[in-house]
Amino acid sequence: MKVTGIIAEYNPLHNGHRYQLQQARQTSQADVVIVCMSGNYVQRGEPAVLDKWTRAQLALAAGADMVVELPFASAVQPADRFATGAIDLLAQLGCQTVAFGSEEAAFDYQTIGQKIAALPAQSAAFVDYQKTYATQLNEFYQQTLNLSIDQPNHLLGISYAAANARLAQPMQLLAIERQQAQHADQLIQTGAYASASAIRKVLAHTPVDLTTVQPVVPATTMAALTTQQGVQWPQLWPLLQYRINSTPLAELRQVYQMSEGLEYRFKKVITQVDSYEALLQALKTKRYTYARLQRVCLYVLLNIKDTAIQQTLEQPYVRLLGFNQVGQTYLHQLKKQLTWPLISKISAKLGAETGLLGLEVRVDRLFEQLTNTHQNFARQPLFYQGKDVE
Amino acid sequence: MKVTGIIAEYNPLHNGHRYQLQQARQTSQADVVIVCMSGNYVQRGEPAVLDKWTRAQLALAAGADMVVELPFASAVQPADRFATGAIDLLAQLGCQTVAFGSEEAAFDYQTIGQKIAALPAQSAAFVDYQKTYATQLNEFYQQTLNLSIDQPNHLLGISYAAANARLAQPMQLLAIERQQAQHADQLIQTGAYASASAIRKVLAHTPVDLTTVQPVVPATTMAALTTQQGVQWPQLWPLLQYRINSTPLAELRQVYQMSEGLEYRFKKVITQVDSYEALLQALKTKRYTYARLQRVCLYVLLNIKDTAIQQTLEQPYVRLLGFNQVGQTYLHQLKKQLTWPLISKISAKLGAETGLLGLEVRVDRLFEQLTNTHQNFARQPLFYQGKDVE
Repeated sequence: MKVTGIIAEYNPLHNGHRYQLQQARQTSQADVVIVCMSGNYVQRGEPAVLDKWTRAQLALAAGADMVVELPFASAVQPADRFATGAIDLLAQLGCQTVAFGSEEAAFDYQTIGQKIAALPAQSAAFVDYQKTYATQLNEFYQQTLNLSIDQPNHLLGISYAAANARLAQPMQLLAIERQQAQHADQLIQTGAYASASAIRKVLAHTPVDLTTVQPVVPATTMAALTTQQGVQWPQLWPLLQYRINSTPLAELRQVYQMSEGLEYRFKKVITQVDSYEALLQALKTKRYTYARLQRVCLYVLLNIKDTAIQQTLEQPYVRLLGFNQVGQTYLHQLKKQLTWPLISKISAKLGAETGLLGLEVRVDRLFEQLTNTHQNFARQPLFYQGKDVE
Repeated sequence: MKVTGIIAEYNPLHNGHRYQLQQARQTSQADVVIVCMSGNYVQRGEPAVLDKWTRAQLALAAGADMVVELPFASAVQPADRFATGAIDLLAQLGCQTVAFGSEEAAFDYQTIGQKIAALPAQSAAFVDYQKTYATQLNEFYQQTLNLSIDQPNHLLGISYAAANARLAQPMQLLAIERQQAQHADQLIQTGAYASASAIRKVLAHTPVDLTTVQPVVPATTMAALTTQQGVQWPQLWPLLQYRINSTPLAELRQVYQMSEGLEYRFKKVITQVDSYEALLQALKTKRYTYARLQRVCLYVLLNIKDTAIQQTLEQPYVRLLGFNQVGQTYLHQLKKQLTWPLISKISAKLGAETGLLGLEVRVDRLFEQLTNTHQNFARQPLFYQGKDVE
């Protein structure tokens, strides 16, 4: 049985994602396509515009046979850790191939992944406070491997390749050319494709006008965006402001990734700004990317400490969000070979603070509060009856 | 120079308070009347319906010569600690008399205060989990002193008397009969007097209709209530809900007054309720009064730990909110004899986390966020020009 994995955020799922799902299945001749998807918070440190159950449903409707959740501890991380979490999860699920979108699909990811995996860990050496970690990593790749990375998906692809090369049994890498829209496009052009960030830009406007979104997303996404309440950072701003103001320095310092005295900047600027965007602007230095700052803001908001992240990473699991008949059949076969616990329903024990999914349950409480939905307890994996991709 | 002190919350200031100010001055033949007033959070664990500067202004307009702030660490406390903080502050300010409203003005507060002050501390003995601390204290007073306390202001009066009796040089006690409305009255009756809680009840309704409030408050209070945005618990509810959900048990346990496993109840009920009132109902047991629970909710919301309270109590100060010409003249004379620091303006050092007013600044940040006003930095004591009581 041929099994192909896709690493995704679907924030939200658009025509390009659906194309990628189809291409991945076709090119790899997969019997089963598994999507490993971020939960309610995404890699760049933002809440997802639709909750994880809705996005899992969209993935199933767009052709996925199974959707599993990439835990918060791996999802809200820089590219290398995000990639490691996702690749390990897909390998655990028995995937022989991992497919991903790329601006440079012809690139030899396999070889570069092996080269990077062979390098000693360098992060400790990136101590130039005038440059971001990402910039120093790029410079290091440039110097050692003559590798130049300009595109975010290219960086993710290389990160997948490196994480994959570290596996005992690496998977096949399948880069799929991105359609038309490049990731950073901020305006929706005419045509069937636009980037998720361009779509989020539309959603951020009040009142939301979905006219330009309709041509670039499947009907299921359109329906979800029309009927469901999403979460975006501006909505979280009063809570973040309150949190920073009510947290003494010594406590703020304990937040995950709050390093190099960043807590002093937080306490200083919070009294000077009146919006989330202004906060980010005020925090920005040459040392930190916006993505990094957004992740730290999310760790502050969700009260995330190092130990919570470490505990989750040390006790991996497979969290099912949904599947169709094909996925269910494969699941039966997979169960015997899984070494990680398979989580379908969350018991009180699993969801308790010290439980396997304690962190996931806790970070989702805010999502539950804001959307008035259940995200963990009282939920079970979706079963998708549809046979065809819409 | 005769100096009389009044302990108040003015939440909000009504005709009964103005009458009390007049009576206190007249009966004690005071040259100077000093009000010691709660800041932005009051004794029963609620935010004040008008901020402390506004309420200080109302006090000056109603006849006070000087207004000082009772620090959060003393203000948001049970009657005995509230009384101790306020009495110590008025004694520091050179008051010879302390006046207070009472439902039983003819009662011999002086004698009972001395008797209570002579008793050994009993709080550690009140361990019946089926009864509130207040109930057990009342029962103890009943047994040892044949004293029965039914009215909240009577309890406060007795607490003032006890705290006063513990002073090296006790002040004169002056109980002033409350006019008409009893404190617990929940409806505004016809006439010039109503309780502050009856007024707050009107303010809690949306939209607010101040028609019934007008006859029972001075014009200055009416103007403030008409033009200023207050804060009430329902407005804080989303923040409290978020706070409880994002705080692990081990951290919640560190909150001031979170004892006897109360943190487990908080974590359990927070997922079952959808309003502040419902939360209080769900938390209520025979062991805790609503006032106690409200204070714990406030400590949770404001992230108050034991150490922060202790540090403030151990380093007392006099915080000026406002004065008139009489107050200013007295202040000049007073400065020489003060043993506590006199705070007019808050410097960066005083307001820093470890500074003398660090806790005050921190708890007020939330008020600043919600009302979009400055509460500490950039404020200086009010100078009231008006010569007469309106």
